[in-house]
Amino acid sequence: MSDSDCLFCRIASGEIPADLVRSDPDAVAFRDINPQAPTHILIIPRKHIPSVADLNDGDSDVMGTLFLMARDLAREEGLTENGYRMVVNAGADAGQTVFHIHLHLLGGRGMGWPPG
Amino acid sequence: MSDSDCLFCRIASGEIPADLVRSDPDAVAFRDINPQAPTHILIIPRKHIPSVADLNDGDSDVMGTLFLMARDLAREEGLTENGYRMVVNAGADAGQTVFHIHLHLLGGRGMGWPPG
Repeated sequence: MSDSDCLFCRIASGEIPADLVRSDPDAVAFRDINPQAPTHILIIPRKHIPSVADLNDGDSDVMGTLFLMARDLAREEGLTENGYRMVVNAGADAGQTVFHIHLHLLGGRGMGWPPG
Repeated sequence: MSDSDCLFCRIASGEIPADLVRSDPDAVAFRDINPQAPTHILIIPRKHIPSVADLNDGDSDVMGTLFLMARDLAREEGLTENGYRMVVNAGADAGQTVFHIHLHLLGGRGMGWPPG
């Protein structure tokens, strides 16, 4: 369920400090230490899953929970009216650096296209 | 459930043609007409929900289903080893142009940061 060598598992457990914005039974949210927009929050499941490529068929709720939290945090951050982008990277080509699933919630500025 | 004025509902129903790559009971996938990477697929729920901001608490499965399909299509496209990016835009700041939830699956090249 949790991996003691994983940075994000250790943040979720409270072992490593982070700028937490939400701590729920299934998911945790905290601000990115290298923000790419006025609001840049990472939302992670407590369950250790390295990547979307490692999701099992029974893990449908994992991603659903992250997106419902993104919806709620966007409201709290005042992003709902103007909009926000959500990004999930899987693997090296996408630039994934921590191998524990995380959803980037970005907002507070216009976002360009292509998305990287 | 479906909106007759919505482009993506009309693609899902088959009324408007698209380069379909998957048609399941709950979700449909087709290639973006303005691809931003060698693989650029849009994955949509059949259910008409304008944006992540409009998800209900009971809609957790909606996003979960899209991500399981992304995982499977990434395998089929040969992206799993090198990686892929998944993007969901909500609202104008993010550049959302069709107001029916869609997940962008992008891969086949290195993706930059920030994501737009």
